[in-house]
Amino acid sequence: MTLDAVLARIDADLPAATERLFDLLRIPSISTDPAYKAECDRAADWLVADLASFGIAAEKRPTPGHPMVVGHVDGDGPHVLFYGHYDVQPVDPLNLWDRDPFDPELQDGPRGKVIRARGASDDKGQLMTFVEAARAIAAETGRMPCRITFFFEGEEESGSPSLVPFLEQNARELSADIALICDTGLFDSRTPGIVTMLRGLVGEEVTITGASKDLHSGMYGGPAMNPIRVLTRILGGLHDDEGRVTVPGFYDGVPEIDPEIAAQWRGLGFDHEAFLGEVGLRDPAGETGRSALEQIWSRPTGEINGISGGYAGDGFKTVLPSRASAKVSFRLVGQQDPHAIRDSFRDWVRAQVPADCKVDFRAHGASRASVMQTDHPAFEQARKALTAEWPGEAALIGSGGSIPVAGHFKSILGMDSMLIGFGRDDDQIHSPNEKYDLDSFHRGIRSWARILHAIA
Amino acid sequence: MTLDAVLARIDADLPAATERLFDLLRIPSISTDPAYKAECDRAADWLVADLASFGIAAEKRPTPGHPMVVGHVDGDGPHVLFYGHYDVQPVDPLNLWDRDPFDPELQDGPRGKVIRARGASDDKGQLMTFVEAARAIAAETGRMPCRITFFFEGEEESGSPSLVPFLEQNARELSADIALICDTGLFDSRTPGIVTMLRGLVGEEVTITGASKDLHSGMYGGPAMNPIRVLTRILGGLHDDEGRVTVPGFYDGVPEIDPEIAAQWRGLGFDHEAFLGEVGLRDPAGETGRSALEQIWSRPTGEINGISGGYAGDGFKTVLPSRASAKVSFRLVGQQDPHAIRDSFRDWVRAQVPADCKVDFRAHGASRASVMQTDHPAFEQARKALTAEWPGEAALIGSGGSIPVAGHFKSILGMDSMLIGFGRDDDQIHSPNEKYDLDSFHRGIRSWARILHAIA
Repeated sequence: MTLDAVLARIDADLPAATERLFDLLRIPSISTDPAYKAECDRAADWLVADLASFGIAAEKRPTPGHPMVVGHVDGDGPHVLFYGHYDVQPVDPLNLWDRDPFDPELQDGPRGKVIRARGASDDKGQLMTFVEAARAIAAETGRMPCRITFFFEGEEESGSPSLVPFLEQNARELSADIALICDTGLFDSRTPGIVTMLRGLVGEEVTITGASKDLHSGMYGGPAMNPIRVLTRILGGLHDDEGRVTVPGFYDGVPEIDPEIAAQWRGLGFDHEAFLGEVGLRDPAGETGRSALEQIWSRPTGEINGISGGYAGDGFKTVLPSRASAKVSFRLVGQQDPHAIRDSFRDWVRAQVPADCKVDFRAHGASRASVMQTDHPAFEQARKALTAEWPGEAALIGSGGSIPVAGHFKSILGMDSMLIGFGRDDDQIHSPNEKYDLDSFHRGIRSWARILHAIA
Repeated sequence: MTLDAVLARIDADLPAATERLFDLLRIPSISTDPAYKAECDRAADWLVADLASFGIAAEKRPTPGHPMVVGHVDGDGPHVLFYGHYDVQPVDPLNLWDRDPFDPELQDGPRGKVIRARGASDDKGQLMTFVEAARAIAAETGRMPCRITFFFEGEEESGSPSLVPFLEQNARELSADIALICDTGLFDSRTPGIVTMLRGLVGEEVTITGASKDLHSGMYGGPAMNPIRVLTRILGGLHDDEGRVTVPGFYDGVPEIDPEIAAQWRGLGFDHEAFLGEVGLRDPAGETGRSALEQIWSRPTGEINGISGGYAGDGFKTVLPSRASAKVSFRLVGQQDPHAIRDSFRDWVRAQVPADCKVDFRAHGASRASVMQTDHPAFEQARKALTAEWPGEAALIGSGGSIPVAGHFKSILGMDSMLIGFGRDDDQIHSPNEKYDLDSFHRGIRSWARILHAIA
């Protein structure tokens, strides 16, 4: 494989590659909304046809939810599996979009051209960086440098209900030497990163019920227990004065960060003032004595993601409500056990609920943290390949988010993942006016060509 | 005035009186929601026309908010002012109603017929008990036993913003010997009460703002301060372990109850187990060591009437919200100063808001507690008149609610109030499926006829 020729072809083909991405972006494949089921199907068909157009045998595979797309192509080097997802987040509130979210457009941005559309960054644009790299290699050389399995999911934005059964049923077919996942971001606009640590996640919904109906706070205020009072009292104690989560056993399995990795992170020169300043904040609010980067990448947290109870409309209503509820999530690191933490959280809440109230819980997902074995040679090969493409030196980084598929690849298929992506902090994924820098798309395609060349 | 003839006419006219009330109940006069402004106006017009239909000269009087209705009629005895309100609470959650809240119906209840509709009890049904009594007297005798001023408000459920200026601007016209207010309940199903102690009320809305936009809890969870965490921590400390409000100075001006009144209240045989049991509760949740009746009638409280922040819909969203807010109210007794308490509450909150968050407050009404001078002869006359109508002997009682108008009548017009009403504990005012017993409506009308006759 002549890398230079492939890169030149990628450069020349960029307008056509962008048009192909636009085709995919025009399909409103919102996985969480049943009204868009046929559109998810259409996106899967589009991908099958696109892979076939440059000689990859691919199929749409049914699941109880939206289909998977699986394609295989032989090659000389090791076997890699590439993962991306073709489904997108809902678009509401639609009125905050500057244009139709499914009518992509190339626009001028402060750093250059951007592709504006729902899914431009998360994850259709990222997914297509890899597909376009493979297309250019196929066109230029007629043969892949590695054996490649393409694996595209259509339920990532709706909790991936079919993923684990599908991996279990197709473990042999999908097991490779290493997985490549393109669903993360650059460390900063100039510096690419390979994510090697991902936090896990436990989601819980707590509902406290007091009286059998809403009461008038004049008539009952005092003698009748108020569930909002119970809920705020419990959740108000979720963190201690040092910002640590108070649920018993929460820190079991939380490792201190490896000094070598800590030193690497310090070397990244992360600007926490800029990071927080961009959203109007200043002081890292997590555990005292931990840097902002450490708080996001290597420390567990508890967050209240939503709370509701009583009257929240305009004006005032002196209601003493029958119930109040909250959505709480924990981000996990190291060996923290999501199920043990869920149990401990529930016990901790129950112990604080007064006799006159009852509490109900609802589970919303549980995944362990992922820590990759970075001694696989592909990590160093990819790091060098990325460094050759981007202005800054590529780094092994953490991520505060949770990408459960990496954990499932490890636990079900015994396969480590390299999470490499080209998103930027201002891509507004999950929000109105999502975009993907054309530079991310272009250099992303070139990056994958270099990486495949390097690990061949 | 021949009382017996008036009472007989009331009995005969009950079906027509019920139909008139239904007409008024069909008008969705929700004062707190600007979308219903025209409906509030329509309810005021309806009342003007209804008073005119039996010879009372009444007018709709504009205010910056919803109009007042004022009517006058001459009579032989002392001058009384009757107060009621024609606006109603919002109806949400609408799905918990068994029928359209504004399509009144006579239904069978466990104790007899009930009138089911929003406002049936609070306050349209109660307001109309007095109007119907006056109508029957007019029809039977052609002349009122007292000089009467009718005064109906349309903003009681939204904090009465226009009331004080209106009373001040029309003090001469509205000053009477005594006010009659029909917006309270029976002591129990058999026993009427004249409320002589009312709690005051301070309403506050607190909004905590953190980041300038909603964040992703994976990316920012830890370093970015979560306003729900701040809000729950503050409000979780609003009460101590004894159920006392922790805001500094809150108990300034709270008197111990007079031993004589305490003895009278014990004599009422209030059944707190039945009171709480009816709504699925058991343990008085207010200050330790105080009976449920004492907690409602003579002790101040703090309640959280509503809380919201982040994602509260179906499923889960790992959002770290930009803001969270709560509506908090305090019920006041004795000499507690609503303005001092508002200030102290705000200071207490501000002192707990971390540097990276800001807090905004919005005031929703402030009124002192009212304690009536019961030596005016009308109290004893009314007590006897009520005792003649109802199975149980009428009592002078307290009320946990706040009826600020009574305080304003005293401070602005120098006029004491007799608060007499016929609501029942299970009327579900401010809640879905509000109702008013037909017996309350019927005996209520008869009660006012007897009272007007007694104080003539």
